[in-house]
Amino acid sequence: MTKILIVNPNTTASMTETIGAAARAVAASGTEIIAVTSAMGPVSIEGYYDEAFAVPGLIQALLNAPDADAAIVACFDDTGLDAARTAAHFPVVGICEAALVTAGQIAKRIAVVTTLPRSIVPLEELVRRYGYAERARVTACDVAVLDLDKPGSGAEAKLEAEIARALDKGAEAIVLGCAGMADLPQKLSRKFGVPVVDGVAAAVKQAEALAGLKLATSRRGSYASPGVKKYTGLLEEFAPSDPSLRGA
Amino acid sequence: MTKILIVNPNTTASMTETIGAAARAVAASGTEIIAVTSAMGPVSIEGYYDEAFAVPGLIQALLNAPDADAAIVACFDDTGLDAARTAAHFPVVGICEAALVTAGQIAKRIAVVTTLPRSIVPLEELVRRYGYAERARVTACDVAVLDLDKPGSGAEAKLEAEIARALDKGAEAIVLGCAGMADLPQKLSRKFGVPVVDGVAAAVKQAEALAGLKLATSRRGSYASPGVKKYTGLLEEFAPSDPSLRGA
Amino acid sequence: MTKILIVNPNTTASMTETIGAAARAVAASGTEIIAVTSAMGPVSIEGYYDEAFAVPGLIQALLNAPDADAAIVACFDDTGLDAARTAAHFPVVGICEAALVTAGQIAKRIAVVTTLPRSIVPLEELVRRYGYAERARVTACDVAVLDLDKPGSGAEAKLEAEIARALDKGAEAIVLGCAGMADLPQKLSRKFGVPVVDGVAAAVKQAEALAGLKLATSRRGSYASPGVKKYTGLLEEFAPSDPSLRGA
Amino acid sequence: MTKILIVNPNTTASMTETIGAAARAVAASGTEIIAVTSAMGPVSIEGYYDEAFAVPGLIQALLNAPDADAAIVACFDDTGLDAARTAAHFPVVGICEAALVTAGQIAKRIAVVTTLPRSIVPLEELVRRYGYAERARVTACDVAVLDLDKPGSGAEAKLEAEIARALDKGAEAIVLGCAGMADLPQKLSRKFGVPVVDGVAAAVKQAEALAGLKLATSRRGSYASPGVKKYTGLLEEFAPSDPSLRGA
Amino acid sequence: MTKILIVNPNTTASMTETIGAAARAVAASGTEIIAVTSAMGPVSIEGYYDEAFAVPGLIQALLNAPDADAAIVACFDDTGLDAARTAAHFPVVGICEAALVTAGQIAKRIAVVTTLPRSIVPLEELVRRYGYAERARVTACDVAVLDLDKPGSGAEAKLEAEIARALDKGAEAIVLGCAGMADLPQKLSRKFGVPVVDGVAAAVKQAEALAGLKLATSRRGSYASPGVKKYTGLLEEFAPSDPSLRGA
Amino acid sequence: MTKILIVNPNTTASMTETIGAAARAVAASGTEIIAVTSAMGPVSIEGYYDEAFAVPGLIQALLNAPDADAAIVACFDDTGLDAARTAAHFPVVGICEAALVTAGQIAKRIAVVTTLPRSIVPLEELVRRYGYAERARVTACDVAVLDLDKPGSGAEAKLEAEIARALDKGAEAIVLGCAGMADLPQKLSRKFGVPVVDGVAAAVKQAEALAGLKLATSRRGSYASPGVKKYTGLLEEFAPSDPSLRGA
Repeated sequence: MTKILIVNPNTTASMTETIGAAARAVAASGTEIIAVTSAMGPVSIEGYYDEAFAVPGLIQALLNAPDADAAIVACFDDTGLDAARTAAHFPVVGICEAALVTAGQIAKRIAVVTTLPRSIVPLEELVRRYGYAERARVTACDVAVLDLDKPGSGAEAKLEAEIARALDKGAEAIVLGCAGMADLPQKLSRKFGVPVVDGVAAAVKQAEALAGLKLATSRRGSYASPGVKKYTGLLEEFAPSDPSLRGA
Repeated sequence: MTKILIVNPNTTASMTETIGAAARAVAASGTEIIAVTSAMGPVSIEGYYDEAFAVPGLIQALLNAPDADAAIVACFDDTGLDAARTAAHFPVVGICEAALVTAGQIAKRIAVVTTLPRSIVPLEELVRRYGYAERARVTACDVAVLDLDKPGSGAEAKLEAEIARALDKGAEAIVLGCAGMADLPQKLSRKFGVPVVDGVAAAVKQAEALAGLKLATSRRGSYASPGVKKYTGLLEEFAPSDPSLRGA
Repeated sequence: MTKILIVNPNTTASMTETIGAAARAVAASGTEIIAVTSAMGPVSIEGYYDEAFAVPGLIQALLNAPDADAAIVACFDDTGLDAARTAAHFPVVGICEAALVTAGQIAKRIAVVTTLPRSIVPLEELVRRYGYAERARVTACDVAVLDLDKPGSGAEAKLEAEIARALDKGAEAIVLGCAGMADLPQKLSRKFGVPVVDGVAAAVKQAEALAGLKLATSRRGSYASPGVKKYTGLLEEFAPSDPSLRGA
Repeated sequence: MTKILIVNPNTTASMTETIGAAARAVAASGTEIIAVTSAMGPVSIEGYYDEAFAVPGLIQALLNAPDADAAIVACFDDTGLDAARTAAHFPVVGICEAALVTAGQIAKRIAVVTTLPRSIVPLEELVRRYGYAERARVTACDVAVLDLDKPGSGAEAKLEAEIARALDKGAEAIVLGCAGMADLPQKLSRKFGVPVVDGVAAAVKQAEALAGLKLATSRRGSYASPGVKKYTGLLEEFAPSDPSLRGA
Repeated sequence: MTKILIVNPNTTASMTETIGAAARAVAASGTEIIAVTSAMGPVSIEGYYDEAFAVPGLIQALLNAPDADAAIVACFDDTGLDAARTAAHFPVVGICEAALVTAGQIAKRIAVVTTLPRSIVPLEELVRRYGYAERARVTACDVAVLDLDKPGSGAEAKLEAEIARALDKGAEAIVLGCAGMADLPQKLSRKFGVPVVDGVAAAVKQAEALAGLKLATSRRGSYASPGVKKYTGLLEEFAPSDPSLRGA
Repeated sequence: MTKILIVNPNTTASMTETIGAAARAVAASGTEIIAVTSAMGPVSIEGYYDEAFAVPGLIQALLNAPDADAAIVACFDDTGLDAARTAAHFPVVGICEAALVTAGQIAKRIAVVTTLPRSIVPLEELVRRYGYAERARVTACDVAVLDLDKPGSGAEAKLEAEIARALDKGAEAIVLGCAGMADLPQKLSRKFGVPVVDGVAAAVKQAEALAGLKLATSRRGSYASPGVKKYTGLLEEFAPSDPSLRGA
């Protein structure tokens, strides 16, 4: 049995449910999905500021699950992914990175369609960091994260219009750029006749892959465990302790 | 049950066995591995010329397996991968690409250690195409492919020396740059204390991922099915026929 | 006397004639042009699959002409160019690469106008590999290769419309992205008032240049002669033999 | 009078003193330097994990200083810089970015010498993001941040040895890659005969520049003010409120 | 007192006045601005040819001002900047580079709006050299330099239309791409509600920064002082003499 | 008969002789080589400053030869090449660009070996601009230009040592990075067993190519003819006049 922890790094529990359901729908028979909601921070993550304040809750959720075999950060900004990898005793997968590596194996040109325009540049930075800048374009359908499943918000029509524009410009596959869109890929794929990749589903498979290969995050170089040191104030409890004491 | 076809695009059956064993060792419980040897072409693939002549045998093996759920090209040059994707009715995974996307999720800086120096530039071109040029360096341990498992060839010592050099220069994870090294990752990982990724194992997981997500190669743009047309001479039989006749 | 072999790597003899005529029109007085049609493979090359199956016929044509001073691969995908360079005893020029290096010496921004949209991405990959990604854009006029000279196909009007669009977006010179357009550059250049470069003509001059400088393909590194080894099945005859036996 | 707030985002007050002194030493006559120590988080910032937990304290310090004309984040990782820019009512300068733009105007090739090897990759990512990847190399002298001014730690000798190596490899100017080195540039510049740039000093000048030009962070696109929304738990107080209420 | 020399490398004195006024408007209280007009060369600099012939006049002006603390080349092509840096005894700032490093600290995506289309490619080359190619787009408003302040030329309307287009495409800040626009930033910034950066003003601050930090151009590597040698003909007087004789 | 003008942009006539001889040695039978020495400027071109002052003499030489079919700028910095292209009525070839496009067709990895270390960065900038940054490394053998053919200077031994180092690091072909090395390629190629490309010889062939294809520099965009305007002072005579008056 492989235990995969999915952390929704925002505090909106209904979104965690959508995410958990999408994850379970694609999980292998031997995979257990544990979807948790962050206990602190923003109700949705839109832009650099929200991102920064979502990290402590994310890390807390990871540290509270010492027996997971792999974990997923279920926000398309891959919020706090690098910090999470240094902290967790198991591999950690980001849904943006997972979606890109998946789409990249079935298509040469990719469109990432996200929610608000303010997220375009942060996602472009991720796309470049992951090496997909020449292959993936980022666009926004101009819908707030929490409006995605609000009836009457027109969200789906806006998303579909943006997908159509991306295909016109040469996209060969679509990546849905928000964890809140995790229930849509099948429907959109049928409608547009191209692969549509949801990051949550893609991340479940990447997490199963890393767990199945018994691969752990490298401790050499940039992902070395945090050095033991003192933290003060509100965040005191997050001070890195001796990893050998934490069972690493 | 997921059926994964692994094609060894060279004609050396003993290498297919190593590959098949490595694949089965990591396959999920519901995965059937079918490892086949190419029926025509070079006994090993070293450089651009061998690569070109390995493609027809690879394509033939793919077309002979219409009921696979996914396939793997088991040569680290990802020989003929683009042609394979346009031809096959199922997703096709390359072991170089699979190894890079896997290593990239557990380490920031990667060393790819291949066999002969003549393969460095072709692999650098792949690494760049996949978007890992800033993160992955390619080096060679100067061992011919078919010497890898010859007793007394000194192959393993040369490979280990090259890995040590790569770690000194900042590599955080190692990718083994030849399908013939598929039996070595655990041993090397223990020895050097860093993740060591074998492309065959990584590709099994990526193939399971694509099959599990029911994602097919995009038919829009560069991976469109080959247009129906006449081929002549020796290669006549490979002429693309109407895909609807082939059950696509 | 310099002997330049031009191989049309598709099997359509009428296209070889267009290519041969374009080559002879620009050849220096001391240059003999030998235009040959591939004896096996696809009637036209459109996309990755056709490309792969055009390579054996191309290599055969090169090996059958041991006394050439230089050769040209006359398909804009530069089909099999790397394999050809390792195999031939004389330098080999690709028409895409030749067109880009030529256009790049008379203009800073280049538009490559090719036939079908499915060829855009393969050509973008070539353009990037050759180092022209920042300077050259690839577009398609949506005409099949074999329709280029069909009366009533509207091919020329579509090509001209695409050129006009490219100039509007800042192109300073046009590269014709298909060997089948080799008869058009003068006419289009007069019409649009910008340099129009045909790859076949450009390649003749690059082949004359390399032959005139007595430069051979480097045998150090990635273009080393293929190692002597066994090939089996349909492609057995292509097995690399001892180059010293082939007069290299 | 221009008020420049310098936030040391770690909690080590002695380091704030070094930083404040270095800042005052280069400040213009009309500039007031206010150096503050973060009230929460790690005692030193080494790697992704520490970085993440330094952000809330940094943001708090910025929000507590509504009347500054510009601010500086005084950690060479430019910790939380993007979040800081969306939150603050005044421009915010990072010492890594400031050092690079300064060094880039007096030299073509730059070496950034930082403390621990684990910081090399995070800094390389910054350097790339800022556009200096082709011009700046990052190396480490293998000294922990808090050992920099410990007598007997051998820190200075290690730093000098690393600078010498960088000059041998072609560096034309040196950037000191840690705020804790702010007292060293003059001495090192004299010793090696090349410009040595300290990020703190450079940032004071960039902050004076932005304040003097009355330029504010753009609110269009990625640096838009955080949307008003609820934050929960430990970090509740950081919830973005209506900027008009905050006097923006 | 800091003495900043601003050289207008074209010979149009009225433009020097605009430039000098813009510089004085932002100079710190302790800064003296000395604006000089080149004594030889083109009346305006538009394209590579004019650029080349503006360099001797620029160098002459720099060599005539041995007691400056820093200098500015006030043409947005950063005409002759590299040569100027090797020749001058004080740091030299280019207005294009200064504008980019300034805008880059308050916005992620930048639009550079210049005068004539023929300047787009030269500026794109600068932008790439400075490392801003992924962040800054260059466009032209199609107004000749000397028409910028001609009443009735429609120049301002064209410039504003181009700015509006750039913002629509995602620009977060505007850089004015000609020294002749130095009087417009405040007005345009108010109109469009985004930061508008003028290179002259930005350069004054960068010059103050370098002078304040007592940083000189590196003499190691590419900016080494010109070797002493003979020049002949018209340009004889520019022959590099022994720098120790020139008080360096 | 094709007339090719070679301008040595430095004023050392003995170097023009070496260059002219190298050019004639490879020129086609129908090619006339006219080698001229610049009438003003530096005796050798080493670094940005010399480069700038070599341009007027170069342009003068080009304007004095209205009936050439093509021209070559015979300094490896491609001194003033862009300005030359806008000014001349015939195509202009740079020896650095010509050498790179030539070497790039016979090798994947190239080493450019130049004279002084100060030229490395300027050449790296050229190499990047031409698109060869991923394929070509620049190194220096630390010999001054005018010492290249001085008996007893040890120049040749230093050059050979540098070539050996470059081959060890993976170079597949060598480009000689100074016009003053034009007499060495055959000898070095024999010694090292790899292609050695001299820029002067390569440029003759590129000039023959452009002339043979009747291709002219594009007048659209960045290479548009200089606008008619006034120049003053020493350089007055270089003012662009109406091209129709100059017979363009």
